[in-house]
Amino acid sequence: MKQEKISEAVVRRLPVYLRFLNELSLSDVQTVSSQDLGEKLDLNPAQIRKDLAYFGEFGRKGVGYNVAYLIEKIRHILKLDKTLNVALVGTGNLGRALCNYNMYTKDNMKIVAVFDADAGKTGTKINQMTVQPMSELSETVDRLGIAIGIITVPAIEAQNVADRFVAAGIKGILNFAPSVLKVPAGVRIHYADFTAELLSLAYYMDYEKRKEQGDVEE
Amino acid sequence: MKQEKISEAVVRRLPVYLRFLNELSLSDVQTVSSQDLGEKLDLNPAQIRKDLAYFGEFGRKGVGYNVAYLIEKIRHILKLDKTLNVALVGTGNLGRALCNYNMYTKDNMKIVAVFDADAGKTGTKINQMTVQPMSELSETVDRLGIAIGIITVPAIEAQNVADRFVAAGIKGILNFAPSVLKVPAGVRIHYADFTAELLSLAYYMDYEKRKEQGDVEE
Repeated sequence: MKQEKISEAVVRRLPVYLRFLNELSLSDVQTVSSQDLGEKLDLNPAQIRKDLAYFGEFGRKGVGYNVAYLIEKIRHILKLDKTLNVALVGTGNLGRALCNYNMYTKDNMKIVAVFDADAGKTGTKINQMTVQPMSELSETVDRLGIAIGIITVPAIEAQNVADRFVAAGIKGILNFAPSVLKVPAGVRIHYADFTAELLSLAYYMDYEKRKEQGDVEE
Repeated sequence: MKQEKISEAVVRRLPVYLRFLNELSLSDVQTVSSQDLGEKLDLNPAQIRKDLAYFGEFGRKGVGYNVAYLIEKIRHILKLDKTLNVALVGTGNLGRALCNYNMYTKDNMKIVAVFDADAGKTGTKINQMTVQPMSELSETVDRLGIAIGIITVPAIEAQNVADRFVAAGIKGILNFAPSVLKVPAGVRIHYADFTAELLSLAYYMDYEKRKEQGDVEE
């Protein structure tokens, strides 16, 4: 069956829904309305209903969505119903933090190999993985069927790591370095853009202040 | 002068423009066209011109935008023309990574105080700051005029830290914990949502594969 292209905005909201639904599930909540979702996630309930309707009729009027079913559906849509292996390059504080982070089991993403260009780091252990030299990247990606690469090196080294990932056949990259990278068509790059989130906070804080002073239009 | 409310999508693209413009500036590039910006940032040039026109007429047809002037303008719009002090709670690997991260000087955001609920961590040093106990949060926020709080604690402790930030008078929060938090009106919360970026990668990688197989509509 051919599938329509889903808008980028929708694809990016699905993990946000999923995170909240996982929380509900942990608290043994069985059903949730688009109103509840909207209030908690600061989104318009009509928008949420529209997003979810993209993938078929999940909800029932007056009853809401079945949490477990919705989780299963979103995981299927995001292709999280099979485990994806991930490689990480750069074992500074941020890289180490990500290797120790516990999201992967729940979300079927798992960092299975860690690399560093610094010979002083290779051979050390992080969360039961041995840090490997960059020369082993291609072979390891092949052997472990690694699909996604994470970049946690300084900005100046990030393009080089991206090129190495691409050469090794990786098709999805998450870049934490504060630099814009070039990758060929067919390779998807996402930015872990907490600097953008932080910088846009400044705008909103000033906006709230001006709103209090009656200095902005709603 | 009253100012129109700028759409959230635009406010979130401005830091992305800013990051790339800063890179151009470092490479001594003087002007840039909306075409160049669009190609590099994977955005529609018409969209970029529209975003930037929001704030007045920056560009000149056939000449493009003056990089230094555009940086100055965007910094002004985002209120980054004055330094914002930031507090961070949670000194695990991720918290330490952020404290050591060098974006702050360039972007006028500076982590000036670090806190941890773990008495074993207080008194230790990270990047020349002494880790403080949570009991000192309010007083320190006051004394240093801290405007923004960063949360890098485990998910289960994140709401408690957010409440403490709010009680201390902080109006902007960046949450790295994978949990949805409640804050009162007038306080802005942003999520450093790298899990969402990572999870949405899975969708796109599958989509690219199906596209190769002629199995999706453009």
